[in-house]
Amino acid sequence: MDHLVRQFDRDLDNLKQKLLRMAATAELMIKQTISELVERDRDLARDVRAEEQEVNRLQLEIDEAAMALLATQQPVAADLRFILVAIRINGEIERIGDLAINITQNVDVLLEQPPLKPLIDIPMMADVAQQMVRESLHAFVRRDVLQAQNVIANDDKVDAFKNQIIRELLTYMMGDPRSIERALALILIARHIERIADHATNIAQDVIYMVQGRDVRHPKGRREETPQ
Amino acid sequence: MDHLVRQFDRDLDNLKQKLLRMAATAELMIKQTISELVERDRDLARDVRAEEQEVNRLQLEIDEAAMALLATQQPVAADLRFILVAIRINGEIERIGDLAINITQNVDVLLEQPPLKPLIDIPMMADVAQQMVRESLHAFVRRDVLQAQNVIANDDKVDAFKNQIIRELLTYMMGDPRSIERALALILIARHIERIADHATNIAQDVIYMVQGRDVRHPKGRREETPQ
Repeated sequence: MDHLVRQFDRDLDNLKQKLLRMAATAELMIKQTISELVERDRDLARDVRAEEQEVNRLQLEIDEAAMALLATQQPVAADLRFILVAIRINGEIERIGDLAINITQNVDVLLEQPPLKPLIDIPMMADVAQQMVRESLHAFVRRDVLQAQNVIANDDKVDAFKNQIIRELLTYMMGDPRSIERALALILIARHIERIADHATNIAQDVIYMVQGRDVRHPKGRREETPQ
Repeated sequence: MDHLVRQFDRDLDNLKQKLLRMAATAELMIKQTISELVERDRDLARDVRAEEQEVNRLQLEIDEAAMALLATQQPVAADLRFILVAIRINGEIERIGDLAINITQNVDVLLEQPPLKPLIDIPMMADVAQQMVRESLHAFVRRDVLQAQNVIANDDKVDAFKNQIIRELLTYMMGDPRSIERALALILIARHIERIADHATNIAQDVIYMVQGRDVRHPKGRREETPQ
């Protein structure tokens, strides 16, 4: 029995490590796609796409491992919550990877034309979102509710960035029709980053649920607050 | 034992009914938010927001019921897959509800100004997406792989609509700076509808996984294909 228990703990730890690797890969995707935009370096798009394959591969592996644990170990209470939250986080990270790909697609459009303006806010916004992803995963592995709450609080910063970026870009669009296509691509990038931050927020909420056994999603009205 | 088995079947059926109710509510939200846009009827926004509360309430209820089934029944194989897929579908429907709210927020912006143009394609696109949501849930309750594949095939139609809509609206933006804000709101609405269709596609893929026990997500390369 002791042997079985230790095996179960190793399996849970293995799941944790895979999620950390997957999240680190998704974070790298965000970083590189923004570098591609700022440094106008098309080669980075190839790296981002290769990393997406890795994220997708890990997603399937993690889902399968979690399923196997549920089927063979029939965990209850805290262990069951851990595995369910791992499944949910798995889905969130995969969507973060998708969003990095979406950003890359908008960057493709932008690199076909001269730069519209120096980019300051978008890289800063992406930094905050990337940090939220990293910290939400740290909160998960350390079962750290305070850190999770900190991630949730940072979501407002990201929303403020987005609003400011959209306002500025609308001014460009109205001032010069030739800027419209590029300004729209930048607006969409800001929205993709905002959604990355939303997924990190979801992860943080799942961590609180896992640790405290209570669901903080709708009562605090976070998930439905995704701004337009 | 027989008694317990029957209770378990009833619990699974109950879960199914709740998901159907939740999906029907999310569908209604899509329908009403598009009516709000086309008929310029602000009152509908209130209904949509009330329905979102219902969707959120059902989400928590379904998650809890699924958790309880996992903990007390320790299901394996097909039953386990059913419950895991129910949890995933639950998350997808909740996001569809969020997207309907996002559409409502863009409609708010549009109703503050005179109509930009007659709306033909957006309502048609929304119809297809709404039908995909309905059919993906039918495929789930009937374990109907063919219908699930049909949903997945319809996603291309929605993408084609979106591309056409964005192309047309860009023309408006370039032709008249006063149209920019409204055209942008309409572009964002088209993108929200596209994402609703993506979530229906995810549900359909989950149904195939549930019935066939194989994961059709990344091998067929659907999930990562979300166009920018």
